[in-house]
Amino acid sequence: MKRTHGCGELSRGNVNEKVTLIGWVAKRRNLGSLVFIDLRDRSGICQVTFDETMAAKVQEVRSEFILQVSGTVQMRGAANPKMKTGEIEVLAEDVMIVNRAETAPITIADDTDTSEDNRLKYRYLDLRRPVLQQILMLRHKVCMIARNTLDAEGFVEVETPILARSTPEGARDYLVPSRIYNGKFWALPQSPQIYKQLLMIAGMEKYFQIARCFRDEDLRSDRQPEFTQIDIEMSFGDEDTVFAVVEKLMRDIFKGTIGVDLEEHFVRIPYAECIRRYGTDKPDLRYGNEIQDLSGLFRDTEFQVFRNVLDNNGVIGALRFENAADKYSRKGLDKLQDFVKHGFKAKALAYLKMENGSLSGSVFKPLSEAEREAIVKELDMHDNDLVLIIADTPKIALSALGALRVRLAKELDIIPQDVYKFLWVTDFPMFEYSEEEERWVACHHPFTAPKAEDVGKLFSDPEHVSSRAYDLVINGYELLSGSIRIHDQDLQEKVFEAIGLTMESARQRFGFFLDAFRYGTPPHGGVGIGLERLVMVLAGTDNIRDVVAFPTTNSSFDMMSEAPNVVDKAQLDILGIEITKKDSE
Amino acid sequence: MKRTHGCGELSRGNVNEKVTLIGWVAKRRNLGSLVFIDLRDRSGICQVTFDETMAAKVQEVRSEFILQVSGTVQMRGAANPKMKTGEIEVLAEDVMIVNRAETAPITIADDTDTSEDNRLKYRYLDLRRPVLQQILMLRHKVCMIARNTLDAEGFVEVETPILARSTPEGARDYLVPSRIYNGKFWALPQSPQIYKQLLMIAGMEKYFQIARCFRDEDLRSDRQPEFTQIDIEMSFGDEDTVFAVVEKLMRDIFKGTIGVDLEEHFVRIPYAECIRRYGTDKPDLRYGNEIQDLSGLFRDTEFQVFRNVLDNNGVIGALRFENAADKYSRKGLDKLQDFVKHGFKAKALAYLKMENGSLSGSVFKPLSEAEREAIVKELDMHDNDLVLIIADTPKIALSALGALRVRLAKELDIIPQDVYKFLWVTDFPMFEYSEEEERWVACHHPFTAPKAEDVGKLFSDPEHVSSRAYDLVINGYELLSGSIRIHDQDLQEKVFEAIGLTMESARQRFGFFLDAFRYGTPPHGGVGIGLERLVMVLAGTDNIRDVVAFPTTNSSFDMMSEAPNVVDKAQLDILGIEITKKDSE
Repeated sequence: MKRTHGCGELSRGNVNEKVTLIGWVAKRRNLGSLVFIDLRDRSGICQVTFDETMAAKVQEVRSEFILQVSGTVQMRGAANPKMKTGEIEVLAEDVMIVNRAETAPITIADDTDTSEDNRLKYRYLDLRRPVLQQILMLRHKVCMIARNTLDAEGFVEVETPILARSTPEGARDYLVPSRIYNGKFWALPQSPQIYKQLLMIAGMEKYFQIARCFRDEDLRSDRQPEFTQIDIEMSFGDEDTVFAVVEKLMRDIFKGTIGVDLEEHFVRIPYAECIRRYGTDKPDLRYGNEIQDLSGLFRDTEFQVFRNVLDNNGVIGALRFENAADKYSRKGLDKLQDFVKHGFKAKALAYLKMENGSLSGSVFKPLSEAEREAIVKELDMHDNDLVLIIADTPKIALSALGALRVRLAKELDIIPQDVYKFLWVTDFPMFEYSEEEERWVACHHPFTAPKAEDVGKLFSDPEHVSSRAYDLVINGYELLSGSIRIHDQDLQEKVFEAIGLTMESARQRFGFFLDAFRYGTPPHGGVGIGLERLVMVLAGTDNIRDVVAFPTTNSSFDMMSEAPNVVDKAQLDILGIEITKKDSE
Repeated sequence: MKRTHGCGELSRGNVNEKVTLIGWVAKRRNLGSLVFIDLRDRSGICQVTFDETMAAKVQEVRSEFILQVSGTVQMRGAANPKMKTGEIEVLAEDVMIVNRAETAPITIADDTDTSEDNRLKYRYLDLRRPVLQQILMLRHKVCMIARNTLDAEGFVEVETPILARSTPEGARDYLVPSRIYNGKFWALPQSPQIYKQLLMIAGMEKYFQIARCFRDEDLRSDRQPEFTQIDIEMSFGDEDTVFAVVEKLMRDIFKGTIGVDLEEHFVRIPYAECIRRYGTDKPDLRYGNEIQDLSGLFRDTEFQVFRNVLDNNGVIGALRFENAADKYSRKGLDKLQDFVKHGFKAKALAYLKMENGSLSGSVFKPLSEAEREAIVKELDMHDNDLVLIIADTPKIALSALGALRVRLAKELDIIPQDVYKFLWVTDFPMFEYSEEEERWVACHHPFTAPKAEDVGKLFSDPEHVSSRAYDLVINGYELLSGSIRIHDQDLQEKVFEAIGLTMESARQRFGFFLDAFRYGTPPHGGVGIGLERLVMVLAGTDNIRDVVAFPTTNSSFDMMSEAPNVVDKAQLDILGIEITKKDSE
């Protein structure tokens, strides 16, 4: 008796065939002398019917027992349209109990009966849920396609160390004490950044790696302490070369997994324009509702609030939503007001509604007739349109309007499903000022090349230096970031200087990397694609734990194995460390 | 000017084509007004000729400069048969210096000019050596083939955690202190063993992962602190199922990389027989020279030395080597004598030679005429044959003879090259007695199933319990080990008990894993294939550092980045640890 089919593979085409299945009991029903068992394996679920002569053999069988069943496929009396195999059933002729099971502590058919923590504790049972198995298989497929596409494009996958030197990126490193060199530590890599650049210097030309990365951050709900990156780096190219590879990769992955044809080239918008139009560098392009700058309309306004804002170099920005006026009562608008005040420190939210041909709203009265008409014309307002206006500093106004755009799109349900809008955001600023550290810091990382025309401004006007960094955004999520790197040692040293990193400190931390630049470094650049985010988009889930086989909680704790955990003092002794502080338990 | 070809791709077929190359200067020669430059990229090396009009443009060019050159391919006056592109050259018409290079601290053409430590320090330059680049590309190819074959066979790659719970395997764990749970630690996985078994319990049925593993051991020359394993696990199969998958995988990899056709099925030899015939569980089957048991011939001997050995349950084993008698003088034989005495505690090494039709040797005189004739007949001795004999305890005699077999095969140069002999060693003992720990320990790991017929002997006769563990050996190297696992909770608990692991201690360390067995565990088994070893065999190198992009020294130190290294006290403070012992520097 050898397994002939997966449970989910049987269909009308197998009728009258003798088959042997192996699987877990998903459900068992006694109907008088008949017993019906839904048998589940990785491929799906199938109904097996045990008649009077067979029923006795499955009397003790309960949910999650493993059975091996041989029998004949037959059409069902009444098809079950909810099951993929609902047209047929297997009439059991032989059955063997492969293994028994106690009552499972969680429900496997769905995830509604208990807390997520409890399901994480019994992750090996939760993973029996068909939806999670499908996502793990989807993730595997994404990686297979990525590797085959990159291999075909001449990229070579190279494994870089996990036991590494601390990297000069933003987040905290996980440290690993050395037993042989007591007092010294490895760091788990936040990304293979330095190694992949060294591989370019080594002449590998086209590198990739589906690489594990580690960041000891306070987790948000979409982060895990370890995550995976489709890491790519190439020599002798520019933005066009890198983008073409990523676009091919995305086309192959979307076509190969969910059957969606993506466009040949993705839209590109420079960072500054992106902020102006969407108030964010991660705009969701599945809908319009762009921010409109009304400042020009109010150059000569007598409305004191707008006047003051403009006099202080502020902006007046607006969003228009069709058919939304009747959806936002005074109370609803108050909630939006709170949202921008508390979330973005905006001073106020103004609104206008066009209802039954007439305009009303919080700024109806303060504005002149001409100004009202100008707004209606400028924003092309029609009946039942809602317009939200914020007058504030550019930073506050744009970020608040950007967030309102997202919030109303969701509330108004105007986001089309199964649509995938990619966007390259380019020309990021090179530096941002850190109030905390009282210095300019690199927005991307300090190996990113400044735009050639801005090199002269590195010290005189760092705020306005643009970099060759780019992000790929999909449906409002950042899918990857990357950049063209510096390949000139002098320029690299200047950039370190600009962010206040002394050469002494830079040399101490990654002197080997600076040295490497001296011996013939090719121009190069690349990207790191967030694999979990990509799979989340493809699977249509917002929970990162759905796409990770063995995830942790938001506080980096593995409920299943209870890791991290205590270790013997003897283990610490040979590492030459001791515990000075214990988490209260 | 866009790159049209790789340097190594040009041949006679490209003559008269206009090409553009980008690469590193491997060599530069001035011949009067002509300059010849060997340009190197990932694909190979090509000669570029700069005539009178162009020579001035490359006057400053030195080794490892990066050039972009356009020109026309032409036949060379005299071909260089040592170069793949030796028939042609490119006559330069345009050249651009892409980047400059200082004089490299190591030679890139070969590895003869400096110590390995120095080459490791400048690994990014050493990796420019074509032979190392070829091996990295070979490693990539092995992984691509492995993934595509396993995917086609229905296996799903699942990533398991690197930040994990300490595993119950033999070696020391690398530990990672937790910042959020001060006083607690993760362990880096020695293998994904527990996770892959949990994936079987989760119903994934066929899993694989090309997985990073970590062991904090005192390194031997063929180990690295982190290494990679092609990790495979499957449900509902037995040894035949597992072996068939691995054999298919090996056939595809050997065919796809070095073009070698392997046999459909590999030889299988049970452990005990393997030890009897080869004195080792990792025999090299590329040559014969098996150990012959002569004990039966000497049942009634009057030679006191043999008599004593047999009376004490010892054995008399022999090896025969053809055409070797004249290669081992008295002095050479004395060296072998020292080898078995010091390496294996053998009491003595006896020998016989057949030269010009007459027998001589250290045991010629003590043996009777009949015994001598029996040996000649039993071993089929011919002229110029050398026979080595050890009479000792079975353990000493067999291991010493096994080592002699390997040593003489090398010294006599009888090992055929480019031959790949695979061997499954099966039926390993379940337990071995640890003198150090004064208890029986698992030979493989404690999740390995005992053979069904031996379960009754778990406590009464642990020494003679065989397990369902197996190794795959190639040309004398262990390529993988694996086993059919226990899938029954009661049996698992018994095995823990047999190795003196209390249920309390087992529960504390991996209680979650024991719990998992209760809820419907399928029969399952798998393997972990050493990727580095596999690539070493395919590349024909004995140095593990040749197959790792960024290797460490034998003392786990990365010469390039100088990792591990010191960290700030502040970093340790937030982890709640402090250093108690520092390595003297």
